[in-house]
Amino acid sequence: MSKLLLIRIIPFIGSFICLLLAIIFASMVRKKSRGTPRMQEISNAIFVGSRAYLNQQAKMMGIFFIVLEVLFGIMVYFGYLEWPSLPAFATGMGFSLIIGYIGMWISTTSNSRVTYAAKEKGLGEAMNIAFTAASAAGLLLGTVALFYTAFWFNILYWYYGRGATNPIDSMESVVNILITFTIGASFAAFFMRTGGGIFTKAADMGADYVGKVESGLAEDDYRNPATIADNVGDNVGDVGGMKADSLESWVGAIVAAEFLGFLAFRGSQLMLNSLILPMIISTAGAIASILAIFIIKWVVGKCKETATVSMLTGTTLVGLFITVAAIIIMSFFIVRYILGPQYNFLFYASLGGVLAGFLIGLFTLLYTDARYRPTRNISESAKTGPATVVVNGLAYGMESSLLPALTVIGVMLFSFYVSNGSTDYKMGLYGVSMAAVAMLAVTPFAITIDVYGPIADNSGGIASMTEQPPEVRRTTDKLDAVGNTTAAIGKGLLIGSAAITALALGQAYFSKIELLYVKVVLDFMRDPKILAGLFTGVMLPFLFASLLIGAVGKAANKVVVEARKQIKDILAGKSKGDPRAFITIVTRAAQRGIILPGIMIFAIPVIVGILLGPGGVVALIIGTLLSGFAQAIFMANAGGALDNAKKKIEEEGRSGTAEHAASVVGDTVGDPLKDTAGPSMNILIKLISVVSIQTAVLVADLYGKLFHF
Amino acid sequence: MSKLLLIRIIPFIGSFICLLLAIIFASMVRKKSRGTPRMQEISNAIFVGSRAYLNQQAKMMGIFFIVLEVLFGIMVYFGYLEWPSLPAFATGMGFSLIIGYIGMWISTTSNSRVTYAAKEKGLGEAMNIAFTAASAAGLLLGTVALFYTAFWFNILYWYYGRGATNPIDSMESVVNILITFTIGASFAAFFMRTGGGIFTKAADMGADYVGKVESGLAEDDYRNPATIADNVGDNVGDVGGMKADSLESWVGAIVAAEFLGFLAFRGSQLMLNSLILPMIISTAGAIASILAIFIIKWVVGKCKETATVSMLTGTTLVGLFITVAAIIIMSFFIVRYILGPQYNFLFYASLGGVLAGFLIGLFTLLYTDARYRPTRNISESAKTGPATVVVNGLAYGMESSLLPALTVIGVMLFSFYVSNGSTDYKMGLYGVSMAAVAMLAVTPFAITIDVYGPIADNSGGIASMTEQPPEVRRTTDKLDAVGNTTAAIGKGLLIGSAAITALALGQAYFSKIELLYVKVVLDFMRDPKILAGLFTGVMLPFLFASLLIGAVGKAANKVVVEARKQIKDILAGKSKGDPRAFITIVTRAAQRGIILPGIMIFAIPVIVGILLGPGGVVALIIGTLLSGFAQAIFMANAGGALDNAKKKIEEEGRSGTAEHAASVVGDTVGDPLKDTAGPSMNILIKLISVVSIQTAVLVADLYGKLFHF
Repeated sequence: MSKLLLIRIIPFIGSFICLLLAIIFASMVRKKSRGTPRMQEISNAIFVGSRAYLNQQAKMMGIFFIVLEVLFGIMVYFGYLEWPSLPAFATGMGFSLIIGYIGMWISTTSNSRVTYAAKEKGLGEAMNIAFTAASAAGLLLGTVALFYTAFWFNILYWYYGRGATNPIDSMESVVNILITFTIGASFAAFFMRTGGGIFTKAADMGADYVGKVESGLAEDDYRNPATIADNVGDNVGDVGGMKADSLESWVGAIVAAEFLGFLAFRGSQLMLNSLILPMIISTAGAIASILAIFIIKWVVGKCKETATVSMLTGTTLVGLFITVAAIIIMSFFIVRYILGPQYNFLFYASLGGVLAGFLIGLFTLLYTDARYRPTRNISESAKTGPATVVVNGLAYGMESSLLPALTVIGVMLFSFYVSNGSTDYKMGLYGVSMAAVAMLAVTPFAITIDVYGPIADNSGGIASMTEQPPEVRRTTDKLDAVGNTTAAIGKGLLIGSAAITALALGQAYFSKIELLYVKVVLDFMRDPKILAGLFTGVMLPFLFASLLIGAVGKAANKVVVEARKQIKDILAGKSKGDPRAFITIVTRAAQRGIILPGIMIFAIPVIVGILLGPGGVVALIIGTLLSGFAQAIFMANAGGALDNAKKKIEEEGRSGTAEHAASVVGDTVGDPLKDTAGPSMNILIKLISVVSIQTAVLVADLYGKLFHF
Repeated sequence: MSKLLLIRIIPFIGSFICLLLAIIFASMVRKKSRGTPRMQEISNAIFVGSRAYLNQQAKMMGIFFIVLEVLFGIMVYFGYLEWPSLPAFATGMGFSLIIGYIGMWISTTSNSRVTYAAKEKGLGEAMNIAFTAASAAGLLLGTVALFYTAFWFNILYWYYGRGATNPIDSMESVVNILITFTIGASFAAFFMRTGGGIFTKAADMGADYVGKVESGLAEDDYRNPATIADNVGDNVGDVGGMKADSLESWVGAIVAAEFLGFLAFRGSQLMLNSLILPMIISTAGAIASILAIFIIKWVVGKCKETATVSMLTGTTLVGLFITVAAIIIMSFFIVRYILGPQYNFLFYASLGGVLAGFLIGLFTLLYTDARYRPTRNISESAKTGPATVVVNGLAYGMESSLLPALTVIGVMLFSFYVSNGSTDYKMGLYGVSMAAVAMLAVTPFAITIDVYGPIADNSGGIASMTEQPPEVRRTTDKLDAVGNTTAAIGKGLLIGSAAITALALGQAYFSKIELLYVKVVLDFMRDPKILAGLFTGVMLPFLFASLLIGAVGKAANKVVVEARKQIKDILAGKSKGDPRAFITIVTRAAQRGIILPGIMIFAIPVIVGILLGPGGVVALIIGTLLSGFAQAIFMANAGGALDNAKKKIEEEGRSGTAEHAASVVGDTVGDPLKDTAGPSMNILIKLISVVSIQTAVLVADLYGKLFHF
C-alpha cells in the first residue's frame, strides 16, 4: 500500500510543479516593457473589454449555477444524487472560471509587450514573450486538471473508505460520484466557449464586413471602432473558452477511465491501481509538456537574432514531437509499474490514442494549410466569385471529416481488441478510455500553442491600431504564422480526443445504468425507442449549430449597423468612436444566444430519458457523438481552409481585388462555423453525456414509474 | 382464394388506367400549337440537349450495368444470389430509364406550347397545358410502379409456388427475391438523379454567375449561351432524375412492406394477404391521384379566363388534400377487406404515415416560403452582404431538419406501437413499413406537381430567349409560382418517405440476416464493430455530399470560363455562341463526378460487411439513414430558402442592387445543396440498404470465413 500511497502523491507534485513554473513564466513576462503609452492604452482597453465580458458571463453562470445547485440539492434530498456532487459541481465550475480569468489576464498582459518587442527587439524576442506567456496559461491548466482530479479522488477514497468492510462497495461509491465530477467543468466550458464563440465571431464578422468590404479599411485599422471588440473576442473565445473546454475534456477522460477501470478490475487486487493509472499518465503528460516547453524556450533563446518563421515553426513542431514521444516512453514504464507487465496492452492502447490524436492533427493541417490542395483550390476558385469559394469550402470541409472519423474508428477498434475486448469487453472499454487519456495527456502543450495564437493575433492588432510602421505588423504576422501549423494539429487533437472521451463517458453512463438495472438492450432494429434516441442524437448537433450560427448572424447584423454609423462619423472626423458600444452589443448577444442551448442541454437528456428510457439516453449520447464529431471537423476545417485561402490571396499581394473580396466572403461564412458552432460541438457531445450521468438515477426512476409501475 | 386472385389483378388494372390516361393527356398536349418557329427552335434545342445528355448517361449506365450483371451472375453461379435477381435488375433499370426518357420528352414537348399559350391565351390555358403534361408524367410513374411490383410478385409467386409442399418456404423465396428488386431502379435513380443534379447545377451556377453577376444580363437572356444548358438541366435533373428517384422509393417501400408482412404473418392464413396489401394501397394512391388531377383540370378549365395565381395555387393544394383524403378513406376499407377488422391498427399506421408526410411537407413550406420568417430573415440579411445571407441560410437549413426528424421519429414510434410492436415487434415493423407505403401512395400526384415546375420554368426560359414582351414572361413566372407551394410540400414528402422506406429496407436486411444467422446482436456499447458501423454510416453522407458538391464546383468553374469567352464574343457581335459546348462540358462533368460515388456505393456495404460483419452493415444502414436524412432536409431547405430569398428581392423590384447581388451569391451557394447533394441523399440511404440486401449472403459468408472459420 505504501507504493500506492507514494504514487497517489505524484499528481499533486505534478500539479505543484506546473503551478510554480506558471508563476515564474508569468512574472518573466511581466518584467518586459509594456510598450508605448498608446500600446498600453489599447492593451488595457482589450483587457477591460475582456473582463467586462467575463464578469457579465460569470453573473449569468451564477444564476444558472444557483438554479442547478438547488435542483441538484433537491435530487440529493430525495436520494437521486450523492451529496459530494454539490461541492464538486461548484469546484469544477469555479476552477474553470478561474483559469479562464487568469488565462485572459495573461494574454492581455502580454499582447502589448509582444508588440513592443516586435518593434524594438525583433521576431525572436517577440516570440519568446508570446510563448512564455502561453506556457504559463498551458501549465496553469495542468495545475488545475491534475489537482482537481487527484484531490477529489483522494477525498472520496478516504470518505467512503472509512471503516468500510467491503472495498468493492466503497470503491463503487467513489467512481459513481467521480463520474459526475466533470459536470461543473463542462458547464463552465459551455458558457465560456460557446458564449465566447458567439462574442468573438459576431464582432469579427461585423468588423470585417464594414471595415474591409464596405469602407476599404485594413484589418485592425485604428479607425474601425469594432476592432477592439474583435480583439477582445480572441481572448474571450480562444483563450478563456478553449481552456475551459480542454479542462473539461481532460477531466472527463480521466474520470471516465477511472470508472471503466473499476468495472474492468472490480474486486481484483489491482482495482485501486487501475483508478490511479489515468491520473499518472496525465501527470506524465504535464511533465512531457514542461520538457518540450523548456526545449523550445532554449532554442528560441539561442537564436533570438536570426529567427525565421520556418525555423520557429519547426521548433514548435519538434516540441510537439517531444511531448508525444515523452508521453509514450513514460506510459510504457508507468503501465508496467502500476499494473504489471501482463497489462502491457494498456500501453498499446495508450500508444494508439496518442498516435491517433497526432494523426487527426495532421489531417487537419492537410485540409486547412495553404500549402496543400484543398485550401489552394479554394483560393483558386475565388476567380469565379464568392459563391464558388463558399461551395468549395463547404465541400472540402465535409470531405475532411472522413479521415479523422476513420482514425477514431480505427483507434477505438484497436484499443478495444488489443485490450482483449473480444473476451472481456470491460477490459476492452478500459483500453478505449486509456487511449483517450493518453491522447489528452498532451493538453498542456497543445494549450500552450493554442493560447500563443490569440496573443500573436492581439499583438498584431495593437501594432495596427497604434499605427506602427508596416514592418512591425509584418513581424507580428510572422509570429501568427508560426503558431498556425501547430495550432491546427492541436485543434484536431482536441476534437479527436473529445470523441473518444465522450465515448468513454457514454460507456460509463451505460455501465452505471447497468449497475442499476439488470441489463439494457440496445437493439435499435427491434426497439424503436433506441432508434429514436439515436435519431434525436444525430439531429441535436444540427439544431445546436443552427442556434449558435443564427445568434452570431443576428449579432453581426447589429455590429454592422453600429459600425456603419460610427465609421461614418469617424471618417468624417465627427467623433472618435465608441468601442465599448460593440462590446456591449456582442456581450448581450452572447448571453441571449446561449440561454436556449443552455436549457436544452440539460432538458434534452432528461426528456429523452423519461420518454425513451435509459437505452434511449445511451442512444442519444452516441447519436450526438457521431454526428457532432462529423460536424465539428466539417465546421472547423471548412472555416480554417476558407480563412487560410483568404490569407493566401492576401500574402500574394492581391488584397483589394475582386478575388480578395470573394475570399473575404468565404472567410466570413467560415468564421461562425470554425469558431462558434464547431468548437461547441465538442462541448455538446460531452455535456450530453455528463448531464445524462448526473440525472441517471432520477430519470431511470421516473421512466420506470411512468411506464413500468 | 378467388377473392385474392381478383385482388391481385387490381394493381394491373390500376396500372392500365394510369397508362391510358397518360397517353390521352400526352396527346391532348400534342394537339396544342408548338408556338412560333423561334420557340420551336429553342424547345428543340432543349430537347436535343436533354436527349444527348441522357444518351451519354445511358451509355455509362450500360457499362456499369454490364459489370454489375456479370458480378451478380457470378454470385448467382456460386449460390449467393437467386437467378431472378438478374432480369429484375435489368427490368428495374430499364423501366427507370424509359420513364426518364418519356418524362423528358413530355416536358420538352410541352414547354414551348406553354409559352405560346401564355402569350396567346393567358394564364389559365398555359397552366392547363403544363398541368396536363405533368399529369401524363405522374401517371406514367404510377403505371410503371404498379406494373413492376405486381408483375414480379405474381411471376415469382407462381414460379416458387409450383408444386411446393410448404407454402411458407415458397413464400420465403418470393419475398427474399422481391427485396432485391429495387436495386435496378435505385441504381438508375442514382445515375439519373445524381448525374442530373451535377449537370443542372453546374450549368445553372455558371450561367447565373457570368450572366447575371458579371455581365448584368437577365435570367435566361438570349445572349447568354449557357442558358440552354441550364434549361436542359431542369429537365434532366428535376424531371428524369426525380421520376427515377420516386420510382425507386415507391417500389422500395412496397417490397420492404411485403418482406416485413411475410415475417409478421409467417405461417398465418393471412400471409399472402399481407403481401398484397401494400400493392393495393399503392393502387389506391394512383386512383386518388387521378381523382385529384381530374378535379384540378375541371377547375382550371372552368376559370381559364379569370385565373389568378392564388386561385390556382389553392386549387393544387386542394388537389393534394383530395389525394390524401381519398387515400385515407380507401385505406380504411382496404385494410378491413384484405386483412379483416382486427387489423384496423394497420390503417392507423397508414394514416400516421400519410399525415406525417403531409406534415413534413408543411414544414418544408414553412422554412422555404418567402411568406414565413426564415426566408424573410435571410432576404433581410442581404442588407449586410453575401456572407450573412449564406450564414443565415445555412443556420435556418440546419434548424429546419428538426421538426421533420421529430415527425419521422413520431410516426415510427406511433406506427410501431399502434401495431402491437411492444408485444409482437414483427407486426410493429410491418406497421412502420405500411406507414411508408401509405406516405408514398401520393407519389403520382406529387410527381405531377414536381414535373409541372420544370415545365413552367422552361416555358419562362423560352419566353426570355425568344424575346417575348415582358407580360409573357410575367405570365410564365406566375405559372412557376403556382407550382412552388405544392412542390415544396411534395419534396418534403418524398424526403420523409425516403427515411421511412430506408428504415423498412434496413429492417428487411436485418431480418434477412437473421434468417441466415441465429441472431444478430446490435449492442453498440459492448461491440465496437456496431459502433464503427454506425460511425461509418453517419460519415457517409458527408463524404458523398462533398464529392457531389465538389464535382458541381469544378464543372461550374469550367462553365464560367467558357461562358466568359462566349459572352464576350456575343456582346461584341463576333459570334452567335455555341450552346452545345456547355452541354458537352456539364455532361462530362456529370459523368466524371458520378464514377467514384457510384463505385463507393457498391463497395462500402461490402467492405464494411467483410470487416465488421452483418451487424456492422445494419449499423451502417441506420447511420447513413439518420445522418443522410438530416443532411437531405438541411440541404434542401437551406437551398430552397436561399433561392426564395433571392426571388423575394427580385419581386420587390430590387434587382441590380447590392442586396440583390448578395442574394444571388446565397442562391448560388444553395444551388448544389438543394439540387445536387440534397436529393442524392435520398438515393444514397436507400441504395446502401438495397446493395447490402443484394450482397447479404455473400458478405455474411465472407465475414464468417475470414473471422470465424
